[in-house]
Amino acid sequence: MTDHAAHDHAVGLQDGAMASLLDGPPTLVTAGVELFESTLRDQGAEVVSVDWRPPVDGLSDELTRIAADPRTQTANATALERIVAAEPRWVGITTAGDAVGIERGQFLHAGPPITWERASGPMRGALIAAMLYEGMADTPEQAAAIGEAGELELAPCHSRGAVGPMAGVVSPSMPMFAIRNEAFGNTAYCTLNEGLGKVLRYGAYGREVIDRLRWMQKVLGPAMDAAVSQLGSLDVRAIIVQAMQMGDELHNRNRAASALLVREVVPPLLEAGIASSHLADVVRFINGNEHFFLNLGMPAAKSALDPARDLPGSSVVVAMARNGTDFGIQTSGTGDRWFTAPASVPDGLFLGDYGPEDANPDIGDSTITETGGMGGFAMAAAPAIVRFVGGQAADALHATRSMYAIALGEHPHFQIPILEFRGTPVGIDVTRIVRTGIVPAVNTGIAGKVPGTGQVGAGLVTPPMEVFTAAVRALAEAAESP
Amino acid sequence: MTDHAAHDHAVGLQDGAMASLLDGPPTLVTAGVELFESTLRDQGAEVVSVDWRPPVDGLSDELTRIAADPRTQTANATALERIVAAEPRWVGITTAGDAVGIERGQFLHAGPPITWERASGPMRGALIAAMLYEGMADTPEQAAAIGEAGELELAPCHSRGAVGPMAGVVSPSMPMFAIRNEAFGNTAYCTLNEGLGKVLRYGAYGREVIDRLRWMQKVLGPAMDAAVSQLGSLDVRAIIVQAMQMGDELHNRNRAASALLVREVVPPLLEAGIASSHLADVVRFINGNEHFFLNLGMPAAKSALDPARDLPGSSVVVAMARNGTDFGIQTSGTGDRWFTAPASVPDGLFLGDYGPEDANPDIGDSTITETGGMGGFAMAAAPAIVRFVGGQAADALHATRSMYAIALGEHPHFQIPILEFRGTPVGIDVTRIVRTGIVPAVNTGIAGKVPGTGQVGAGLVTPPMEVFTAAVRALAEAAESP
Repeated sequence: MTDHAAHDHAVGLQDGAMASLLDGPPTLVTAGVELFESTLRDQGAEVVSVDWRPPVDGLSDELTRIAADPRTQTANATALERIVAAEPRWVGITTAGDAVGIERGQFLHAGPPITWERASGPMRGALIAAMLYEGMADTPEQAAAIGEAGELELAPCHSRGAVGPMAGVVSPSMPMFAIRNEAFGNTAYCTLNEGLGKVLRYGAYGREVIDRLRWMQKVLGPAMDAAVSQLGSLDVRAIIVQAMQMGDELHNRNRAASALLVREVVPPLLEAGIASSHLADVVRFINGNEHFFLNLGMPAAKSALDPARDLPGSSVVVAMARNGTDFGIQTSGTGDRWFTAPASVPDGLFLGDYGPEDANPDIGDSTITETGGMGGFAMAAAPAIVRFVGGQAADALHATRSMYAIALGEHPHFQIPILEFRGTPVGIDVTRIVRTGIVPAVNTGIAGKVPGTGQVGAGLVTPPMEVFTAAVRALAEAAESP
Repeated sequence: MTDHAAHDHAVGLQDGAMASLLDGPPTLVTAGVELFESTLRDQGAEVVSVDWRPPVDGLSDELTRIAADPRTQTANATALERIVAAEPRWVGITTAGDAVGIERGQFLHAGPPITWERASGPMRGALIAAMLYEGMADTPEQAAAIGEAGELELAPCHSRGAVGPMAGVVSPSMPMFAIRNEAFGNTAYCTLNEGLGKVLRYGAYGREVIDRLRWMQKVLGPAMDAAVSQLGSLDVRAIIVQAMQMGDELHNRNRAASALLVREVVPPLLEAGIASSHLADVVRFINGNEHFFLNLGMPAAKSALDPARDLPGSSVVVAMARNGTDFGIQTSGTGDRWFTAPASVPDGLFLGDYGPEDANPDIGDSTITETGGMGGFAMAAAPAIVRFVGGQAADALHATRSMYAIALGEHPHFQIPILEFRGTPVGIDVTRIVRTGIVPAVNTGIAGKVPGTGQVGAGLVTPPMEVFTAAVRALAEAAESP
């Protein structure tokens, strides 16, 4: 383990201040003069801006009540311990029907619960694609009519131990990765990544989308199943740890992780006796998609966070997810209840001729990466991501550094070399968010708002503060007196 | 291209100083108080230490004469242009006999010229391995006797358009990568990487070493040849560019580049009709060796630097290389002449029970990576390398930053995300080295000094200033008057 002492006394001077001034690196504290802060930060210097804001929304009483709950401190410590102790391994490929128990006419989706009426363009587009893929409709119009008639049964991925990027629509025939958290025995599921551009998860439903989904079902899924059977299982955490030292933050940058995954699966694929023409197609498909690993990283995070659920008194966030209409969170101490608010539109870089006016509000379960200490929380590991989501490399450093203020701890395995191997911030505490006014840093893909468009860009998004204040109110209500 | 304006006015205040103070990030200038400099640097802040040292060794007259040579400025500009315009592509596998024109009894080696008598332990060990491999001797003792009898013909790799890591010994039967610089039509060669531990290039010559070399000749070489034939050619620069955004500096860290290479070669290998048992062995061998790409990156750098040779008046370094006894350089303006001085012992981290007392002096042609704007010059791209060579992540940033002072330019393709995509320093100018007293930053593997040991560690090494002062004297002697 790295010595993190330098970071521990980063804010202000404590006991032995003179000694620590001489021993450790000093921290530059700026107040008010924003220009100084941003120019220093541009150079990669660690700047702590001192914030005197009162707690958001006048929630002092609620915060006091939660802090006084005799269960809170232990429950939060337990939650953090469990999250970082996770040992996610890829153990198999299974169909959605078997994995998450859905049948014809039932679909999972990203984010908190949603209805067809309230669903955004890309969510409707993805449901249309899934209906076409399942043979429930022959045309997009027929599929949309089924949706409008209220004949679909919809449930959040999170309610069935799954996660899905962007629209996150899962239908019974889709193959899914099964990721088992060996430390706790629980399993999380996610579909296989389709690549970029016109794909179901971004709400596209053209012929190419459906053909690709069928190929994934018939060729890719069985090949990946053969590979993992040959391997027994694959250590997903080890790949995440490596990739974070290779410029990935594991949400919008999965380039290293995907390449490392290819390295691992090719030898067993070769030995599994798969037709070599299929094999070349499979390897080319994975190689052509630098986000392929996302659909392993997401369920790995989900599998790490699920054991931290349902700890009475705990203010730790166990899920952040968006359905394209609402942004929702769940905390450990409040069970399966969602706290939601309207999702905002991400700000970032757009593909081709697309612009902000084409962007759908924030969508997807991929914020499970941030919840688990990756993604926006690990951006300092991935300065090159600014070419994809916008901004400067210094912003990537700043994103991670500012998250320590709302996290309960540092991940012992997810280390960032440029921060001297400091662990990523992990264990988001809603009370710290409300106290500091700092919301989680999230980077994300941007879906087109018109159904059928696909991806239009990638960028950063600001979660709505209301979901965190709502969670604090609920936790305060449920708090026990000392 | 990135806007590098911020870096261009980094030192001191020039015209429009007030404007640039407000527009760009300020630079922290420290003088004398070393503690301030190092603590700021620890936090990643850009620190320029102002250095008032007089030119090394009282070489003012020589420096003046070179600066006054009417050819120097143009020649150096041409050298830099050619180096950064290189387009290295892997075009084939060829045997050393064909590639570099050596016959039985002739061997290439790393660094400047050397004889058996002056050769260090690992160099002798590697020559013994090569003799055993070529069937010139049945035992190490017989091989050593051939060496002692002066019956070997030795020549530097660099004298035959090749480069070799560590001992860099090349014998006629070895397969070699051929890397063609498409921009200039020249080709450079390098053997295939054997992996870590007990290997020829570190001076080991046991049975496993020779068996592995034979397998490389019979299985690995032909497989790689089939892959590149199927591909036509492979863009090596593109892999370097990517890998530098994935935490590699391409000398001691080639993890991303090696993984990217596997991605590229697997589909053509699958289509080349190679026996699938061989194929799995080949992929496992490459996967098991995170330095596999080094032997493509080195000849890529060599192929980029060779067109910058033989420009009269140019003070640009076109080769830095060590044979385990001497450290040598060549400059563009001084032809094939080597300037040499005793090689120093690297300082770094040691494997297992090995320590500094087991280390051989610096060895290998791999400093061609530094000469071409990679390796130590790109360390800021690879902060995780400090776990391999020692030091702190901040030292990696500092290594790159300090090299701008001795480089003529910034590489337009080799960009470092954490430095806001600034290009790596490239085009080492011996006059700048002598003027500033700053020598090239080199990181390297460490060979055991006893023949047969293999690798004992990895670390940083300081090139001897004498080679640069000698080159400056020679350039001054050859300088034309204005």
